[in-house]
Amino acid sequence: MSAQKKRPKGINPAFFSKAQDRNAQDQTTSGAYNLKRSVTLAPEIVKGNYTALSRGITLVESTSAIHQKEAEALIEQCLPYAGKAVRLGITGVPGVGKSTLIEAMGGYLTALGKKVAVLAIDPSSSVSRGSILGDKTRMAQLSQNPLAFIRPSASGDSLGGVARKTREAMILCEAAGFDVIVVETVGVGQSEHAVHSMVDFFLLLKLAGAGDELQGIKRGIIEMADAIVINKADGDNKTAARMAKSAFAKALHLYPPKESGWTPKVTLASALEEEGIAEIWEQVTAYLQHTKTNSFFSQKRAEQNKYWLVQTIENALKDQFYSHPEVAQHMTAILEAVARGDRSPFEAAKALLDLQKTR
Amino acid sequence: MSAQKKRPKGINPAFFSKAQDRNAQDQTTSGAYNLKRSVTLAPEIVKGNYTALSRGITLVESTSAIHQKEAEALIEQCLPYAGKAVRLGITGVPGVGKSTLIEAMGGYLTALGKKVAVLAIDPSSSVSRGSILGDKTRMAQLSQNPLAFIRPSASGDSLGGVARKTREAMILCEAAGFDVIVVETVGVGQSEHAVHSMVDFFLLLKLAGAGDELQGIKRGIIEMADAIVINKADGDNKTAARMAKSAFAKALHLYPPKESGWTPKVTLASALEEEGIAEIWEQVTAYLQHTKTNSFFSQKRAEQNKYWLVQTIENALKDQFYSHPEVAQHMTAILEAVARGDRSPFEAAKALLDLQKTR
Repeated sequence: MSAQKKRPKGINPAFFSKAQDRNAQDQTTSGAYNLKRSVTLAPEIVKGNYTALSRGITLVESTSAIHQKEAEALIEQCLPYAGKAVRLGITGVPGVGKSTLIEAMGGYLTALGKKVAVLAIDPSSSVSRGSILGDKTRMAQLSQNPLAFIRPSASGDSLGGVARKTREAMILCEAAGFDVIVVETVGVGQSEHAVHSMVDFFLLLKLAGAGDELQGIKRGIIEMADAIVINKADGDNKTAARMAKSAFAKALHLYPPKESGWTPKVTLASALEEEGIAEIWEQVTAYLQHTKTNSFFSQKRAEQNKYWLVQTIENALKDQFYSHPEVAQHMTAILEAVARGDRSPFEAAKALLDLQKTR
Repeated sequence: MSAQKKRPKGINPAFFSKAQDRNAQDQTTSGAYNLKRSVTLAPEIVKGNYTALSRGITLVESTSAIHQKEAEALIEQCLPYAGKAVRLGITGVPGVGKSTLIEAMGGYLTALGKKVAVLAIDPSSSVSRGSILGDKTRMAQLSQNPLAFIRPSASGDSLGGVARKTREAMILCEAAGFDVIVVETVGVGQSEHAVHSMVDFFLLLKLAGAGDELQGIKRGIIEMADAIVINKADGDNKTAARMAKSAFAKALHLYPPKESGWTPKVTLASALEEEGIAEIWEQVTAYLQHTKTNSFFSQKRAEQNKYWLVQTIENALKDQFYSHPEVAQHMTAILEAVARGDRSPFEAAKALLDLQKTR
């Protein structure tokens, strides 16, 4: 937290509002006051007030118990206005050109009159905060576009916590009238799965390599993708990009059909030369038409909502358990005994569960 | 349970011992007596007494609380003698010839002087019990071999429960001195994952198809396989089998390298003509040598032990939560509201977690 105070001001409005919130928290501990604030924020967000939206997201991101109560009230007030945007997930390793592509897509979509919000999931933000500030710098054009709203990722220590904040920020953006929400993952840890579980369409961005494109792709990522885009298909890179396209198209063919009934395609793009952007959007709209016709779209959203309910419950149960003092005290020794094969995992589990019952 | 009483006697010794256990339970509720029995069973199992082993597994499979206490004591006593067998998982859709292959492998291994135990995981055993009795019939030769022990799958309502019982049965078999434990999955639900998490080597059995071998394979199965065997590579089927082999070899090539450093191979087999069996065993021994050299073998076993500890704890936590009367009463309505988007998953989760705190 203190690290943020040292940051040069003026780079990121989010830091300002965060600091203001901290002041507010210092000045008052009255729940009534805070709930009143969330009552004021919601109508402003629904009107499309970006400052209110920023403050709302800051509230969602806050770890203070009072702010969390306020955030809950705010989310409930915004929910009736949410759900109408297209939710687009974009993943790819660092250096693949996600920011440039999002900048190009944002330019394309805002030119069509669409309001675009960009969010990011970065569970390791304390390490890579720099790259995210960099993102905003790289999306310099889009960030000045009045139809666009770019929000650096929530910080947080657990992926679950960060993902939850991003998902709630998405609700607020939708209530603020955005037509397209782009959620970017930094490709760290399991962040792709978190993003996949909150978007309608999941795009995997790749580069052409040395013919071994398919090596080193994280398990399960291709299966999640609704589209694969080979980026930087420009200049000397064009032939390699076409070969990569063909390799990925073959690989996609090996996977079982998707539940959505949708057949993912591989396309080429050059975010730099703004080529292939319209084709991506064409795929998204074709996907929406396809899945809205076969009703997979609404099924998936309902499943995602249930998934987040269940995940939240089960994470809380685990947190409660593992943070229980008796359990925490004995866990390491028991895990080691089980790993060595000295104790049966089942007997040890029972012993630990019994510990939790002691107060 | 009552269905078992109606079964013709003499087919399966397990049913006898189960019935005897039920009688024992009717006659006594004294924990002391029962613990004494487990004290008698353990040394007999370690001596390699098949009847004691059978009774031990029946104890593990019992749902009675007294038997569970006994089973725990028994497992703890057997653990120091366990862990020395090769644990082999075999999966494949019904009809692929798993039983015939296991019979052929059992014949091959016992001819080498190895003791072979065959277990099965079948979470839907109430439905397919017939096929498992059939398995024993099909493994008629092996079941009469003094070096072999075949045990039909544990019955149970949850995969977790069944898998746990199979894993504990495996410990008892190892204590009884078996050199190879074959765990068969019926390919239903997530049973492959359960088997994969308790074996050293995981074998996927396939048939040659009409060129579309790779379609319809469950997600993640190929990634789990340490070997793929195309079965029924005999007679008119040989050419198709060779084509399937080449298709699978290509598919394997597309996956990222395995953590074990092992490169899975595709081989042909005819369980009927007992061809390709030695090749399978060669692969298993090569794998063991490879993973024991790079110490992946012991790492994997330690990870599996920890996995079962964590799984058992988390399943218990979930069971406790979802069976809480207040939670159970409101769950359906809340899930529906969340699916419709009327309530935020996070707010609803919090409400449900608060319900659990009420007694």
